[in-house]
Amino acid sequence: ADAEAGKAKAAVCAGCHGADGISFTPLYPNLKGQKAAYLEKQLHAFKDGSRTDPVMGPMAGPLSDEDISNLAAFYAGLK
Amino acid sequence: ADAEAGKAKAAVCAGCHGADGISFTPLYPNLKGQKAAYLEKQLHAFKDGSRTDPVMGPMAGPLSDEDISNLAAFYAGLK
Repeated sequence: ADAEAGKAKAAVCAGCHGADGISFTPLYPNLKGQKAAYLEKQLHAFKDGSRTDPVMGPMAGPLSDEDISNLAAFYAGLK
Repeated sequence: ADAEAGKAKAAVCAGCHGADGISFTPLYPNLKGQKAAYLEKQLHAFKDGSRTDPVMGPMAGPLSDEDISNLAAFYAGLK
């Protein structure tokens, strides 16, 4: 996984989850330092609809497997 | 919410999510310092089945609203 590519892809995520992975609203999770495998699993679940959320479903839909790995690596690596 | 009561209730959670809120396995999320409102929302979703997980569904099922608030306060407060 390429955390730098993930960082670039995460520009849109930052609007809610923060550029540093600390979210702006109490209902949205912090992602900073979260486990990469967990983040990947959740992005796949939002994409395939097994986890439903009106915001995250459409966000995850267009992501490739590679995008998902890269995003997870980026957030997991934030200190 | 009563974080001390949440800490007591979290004994069973610690088996996977860690006594300090850092999980033992990459597929399970860290909960340390997570937003309380997000944690509450997810526990309610596991309980009502709108978020499905073979482990967390049965874990959340018996929790009262008060238990959920207390657990969320406990994990949100971990530094």
